[in-house]
Amino acid sequence: MYKLINEVRQKNPLVLHYTNEVTINDCANITLAIGASPLMSYSYEEVEEIVQVASSVVINIGTMNSANLELFIKAGKACNKFNKPVILDPVGVFATKTRSDFTNRLLNEVKFDVVKGNAAEIKYIGGFNVNGKGVDSFDDEENLDEVIKAVAKKLECIVVATGKVDSITDGEKVCKIDNGTAKLKSITGTGCMSASLIGSFIGACEDKFKGATMGVLSMSLSGELANSENPSIGNFKVKLMDTVYSLNSDIYEKYAKVETI
Amino acid sequence: MYKLINEVRQKNPLVLHYTNEVTINDCANITLAIGASPLMSYSYEEVEEIVQVASSVVINIGTMNSANLELFIKAGKACNKFNKPVILDPVGVFATKTRSDFTNRLLNEVKFDVVKGNAAEIKYIGGFNVNGKGVDSFDDEENLDEVIKAVAKKLECIVVATGKVDSITDGEKVCKIDNGTAKLKSITGTGCMSASLIGSFIGACEDKFKGATMGVLSMSLSGELANSENPSIGNFKVKLMDTVYSLNSDIYEKYAKVETI
Amino acid sequence: MYKLINEVRQKNPLVLHYTNEVTINDCANITLAIGASPLMSYSYEEVEEIVQVASSVVINIGTMNSANLELFIKAGKACNKFNKPVILDPVGVFATKTRSDFTNRLLNEVKFDVVKGNAAEIKYIGGFNVNGKGVDSFDDEENLDEVIKAVAKKLECIVVATGKVDSITDGEKVCKIDNGTAKLKSITGTGCMSASLIGSFIGACEDKFKGATMGVLSMSLSGELANSENPSIGNFKVKLMDTVYSLNSDIYEKYAKVETI
Repeated sequence: MYKLINEVRQKNPLVLHYTNEVTINDCANITLAIGASPLMSYSYEEVEEIVQVASSVVINIGTMNSANLELFIKAGKACNKFNKPVILDPVGVFATKTRSDFTNRLLNEVKFDVVKGNAAEIKYIGGFNVNGKGVDSFDDEENLDEVIKAVAKKLECIVVATGKVDSITDGEKVCKIDNGTAKLKSITGTGCMSASLIGSFIGACEDKFKGATMGVLSMSLSGELANSENPSIGNFKVKLMDTVYSLNSDIYEKYAKVETI
Repeated sequence: MYKLINEVRQKNPLVLHYTNEVTINDCANITLAIGASPLMSYSYEEVEEIVQVASSVVINIGTMNSANLELFIKAGKACNKFNKPVILDPVGVFATKTRSDFTNRLLNEVKFDVVKGNAAEIKYIGGFNVNGKGVDSFDDEENLDEVIKAVAKKLECIVVATGKVDSITDGEKVCKIDNGTAKLKSITGTGCMSASLIGSFIGACEDKFKGATMGVLSMSLSGELANSENPSIGNFKVKLMDTVYSLNSDIYEKYAKVETI
Repeated sequence: MYKLINEVRQKNPLVLHYTNEVTINDCANITLAIGASPLMSYSYEEVEEIVQVASSVVINIGTMNSANLELFIKAGKACNKFNKPVILDPVGVFATKTRSDFTNRLLNEVKFDVVKGNAAEIKYIGGFNVNGKGVDSFDDEENLDEVIKAVAKKLECIVVATGKVDSITDGEKVCKIDNGTAKLKSITGTGCMSASLIGSFIGACEDKFKGATMGVLSMSLSGELANSENPSIGNFKVKLMDTVYSLNSDIYEKYAKVETI
């Protein structure tokens, strides 16, 4: 699986982003660092054209910009029409009914290939009725693996739940990643950048489970390695980009703590 | 007063930003660095909901994005409705009649808790007729302290005027901060980030005068300390974030040059 | 020509940007680093006012934000009305018909002083019928110098084609810059920042050919010098800003590889 980094660097996939204004620059730079090409658009006019030239598409609802909500729906539909892998990052879906309703609408109108969130976001999404597939309710004690598997089955996609341990599932098997550092939460954008990395891998390889796993792993592992000498927070961000830029299959082989159940 | 930094780090207030697209990432990162949580939204739909979950709200007119002008008004009104502390940063208010008219409208329709600008911006705002309280005109020779006190009385809020020496007033007492470095003007966003820091403190403590003072002080002091070994401009920005991240009450105690008159 | 850096630092021109959301922060910081003042606006209301106070204006179509397309047209027309130098950066003009049509419309409705793109973008623009001046078609073998001269003559402006060697022409003479590093393509925004630097020089000097040359040279030369000790990608961006900040006429004199044919 770790050889997929070579695929990204050789194929240089075009990762189209419909994303928030806060971390858009970080997303562009991390996409370059992993060896893919970022493209960002807020144009209704060019959706169908530009989705066609993309290798993969990331939709991130972060700032819920009113001017772009219909754009995100339109982009998602175009991805399905042209058979382009599309990733959803439902940032803060539980924070407001507006976010929750919009995410529900996105999930009902667009078939996503990967949905990535933290455990709370994924659990919350389980409560949606998506295309008549009913509402799952999970109590807090419930095993996260069972939760994300249920959500993946309902959404018929790969589900990624980030956290101290990251979990990726296709509804059957679950991959657990035990890399990372708490410092990743001290800078903005690491979640958004994970989605860009997933887009980079999924834009370059067929296997979406492996692609999603490699994307999340690349962030958690780079965070851990960047933090190895406990740099200051400002230097940590510099080193994070450096580490992503220098990733190769040997580094994954040596340091990745990945287990598939 | 310096112990308020502990309040921020313990309470982790949610600082909601309605801000410009230029420095939005810096504002998010400085909010994290001081120990608060940033949240940025450009959604008309979620204003009332999201203001309710915020600890404080920052409104910054920087890019005067036409799509967001009514959003800023709506957000300000929601702050008043739900009794959330709200800060105005009237960037470049004197640059165009459009900015001046919009700021005047904001001040007439929203009751702000803190208005922060540089001395020229604050003086300019003194010339507004806010809710029938008349127009003050100040000549250039006028003592800045008297100017900002008059503006604070008219707006019935804390007024912050940044400069070589920063001044904060509630209309009666004036606090002067003699920390800082000219290098802060060589990178974009330090003014916007000051407002984020004010939001972080005001979201965590009751006393708005002290909160505003701590916010401005945190920027000026961190700038001064970050510049102590005269780093290059690129490294200065890295060190600025580092210094904010590592602030504690001892550092304020040791280095702050604060005087209240 | 290299003394023009002193003009920028003394006159501190105001460079107004109508630009994309990805690299807007980098553009602001590089404008400060070269000694000019950045101003960014997304306001339809203030276009005519704010163009009048600007020294130069940069229009960059990067994200093709639907809300801003008419704004960019309006801003360009205001530049012509108030005789302000205006630069076009037609990012990805060939990527979609939407971008191509919009760029063609911009070129037909606005008289630009400088059009800056990579060689492919400039060649593509040669195929436009601008104000009845017909369509040029270039084959891939064609000499780039002849192509850009033809485009410059048609558009009646300075044309800048960036690449391994950068070329600048007024339609007659061609200036070639042989500085740079491939690493500039590994971070986002270096093309956008070049346009900001051109705006900084053109806002401070009369000779637009020299101004455009100095702007592009400042980026390529700073990239080369920043890379002299082969820093990591994260540190390269820090050093790039540092190098721009410290540029002076002696450095250009010593390291610039510039030839005018």
